[in-house]
Amino acid sequence: MRLRGRKGIREDIERQSELVVLNARDHKGKWAELFGNNNPIYAELGMGKGKFISEMSRKYPDINFLGVDMYDELIRKASEKARAAHELADEEETIIPNLRLVLFNIEQIEEAFADGELERIFLNFSDPWPKKKHARRRLTHPGFVNKYKDILNENGEIHLKTDSQLLFEFSLNSFSDMGLRLRNISLNLHAEGIHPDHVMTEYETKFAGQGMNIHRCEVVIGPKALEQHIQQLVKSNS
Amino acid sequence: MRLRGRKGIREDIERQSELVVLNARDHKGKWAELFGNNNPIYAELGMGKGKFISEMSRKYPDINFLGVDMYDELIRKASEKARAAHELADEEETIIPNLRLVLFNIEQIEEAFADGELERIFLNFSDPWPKKKHARRRLTHPGFVNKYKDILNENGEIHLKTDSQLLFEFSLNSFSDMGLRLRNISLNLHAEGIHPDHVMTEYETKFAGQGMNIHRCEVVIGPKALEQHIQQLVKSNS
Repeated sequence: MRLRGRKGIREDIERQSELVVLNARDHKGKWAELFGNNNPIYAELGMGKGKFISEMSRKYPDINFLGVDMYDELIRKASEKARAAHELADEEETIIPNLRLVLFNIEQIEEAFADGELERIFLNFSDPWPKKKHARRRLTHPGFVNKYKDILNENGEIHLKTDSQLLFEFSLNSFSDMGLRLRNISLNLHAEGIHPDHVMTEYETKFAGQGMNIHRCEVVIGPKALEQHIQQLVKSNS
Repeated sequence: MRLRGRKGIREDIERQSELVVLNARDHKGKWAELFGNNNPIYAELGMGKGKFISEMSRKYPDINFLGVDMYDELIRKASEKARAAHELADEEETIIPNLRLVLFNIEQIEEAFADGELERIFLNFSDPWPKKKHARRRLTHPGFVNKYKDILNENGEIHLKTDSQLLFEFSLNSFSDMGLRLRNISLNLHAEGIHPDHVMTEYETKFAGQGMNIHRCEVVIGPKALEQHIQQLVKSNS
């Protein structure tokens, strides 16, 4: 890996203007324009080094993906991973039609997305902020989840994955207390082998390999998603 | 401990007619009469050796408790524990005003209780039935939970405690899929020390001592309980 100073990193990601978005606020309400189509938009909030979002965008070309993180160093690393996942050979080639890496602070998420603009939010191995006094910083705190509810559309869902028992417990209570509908709760995702389509994050690969429990759940937010979920439950019980 | 044959056990529990109920069906819709008051009735389904229900009944004299199990040997052991917990010195003394031990198979729970007759159901360390083909036997399978919904009253709640990760995961999904409201989910009940009022079961004492995670949650069933729960949430967030 090349080591560079902060200035070098910034120059690097600025150069990749087709892949990296530095002015997220300017795209609020207009992300579909950026992608040039009306495909659903899935965002990973706190994408880290970008393995998950890179592989997902490769796997699902009819979904638009946004990897959001506040550290320019991570955006740069993710851009390398994305280019590798999409097999962009040429150094100068940075166009991946259904993926953008967004440098942005999730605290202000509502300033980057209009109501109903996203269809799915992924929270993968978010910082657990273990101290109680920092609970408000957890990405599943009701303060955040209320924002997600606004920016998700009628098919909206939140998919959460974490190794942190503390964060998972907090999240289940947070969602439950908000009266939200949980689905596919797993306390040990890798216990019975995972689905071949399952895309792993960097942390997940590492932690699952160490035998640590990965916790996962889905939150069904949008009214259409909820209707569909209930229809499936009725069907599977009849 | 005295060892006795099955006949001896049966004679033993038959003799304790003020404490042990062998004809649960006859009391359907009339449990309040048995207790001689209209205090709420809490039932532990699968009470095992009876430590929990004995201590609870001692701790909360204004609640009526029922310890239900299908094995007469456990009923006998529980009766000894109950008499000890209530400090009944005399061998012949078996009256504990707010406790009955009920020999009954939970599979037929609806034959023992009328609609709205119970206020709380405790499921403590229930058999996880780990094989998928036995999932219907788990006491949190929707088949059971639908029965609980009927026999619980407007303040009705289910309190679940288990060391089994598998059963807890299954239960969370079962409750969620039924659209029920979860509260106070804990993935490691003893992590931060438990409340001094918390009453432990035999299994819990053993497993927690071995450092195993105890999982716990509450399900808010009755409309009044739900209303109160939501009011508390609103208050704590304002």
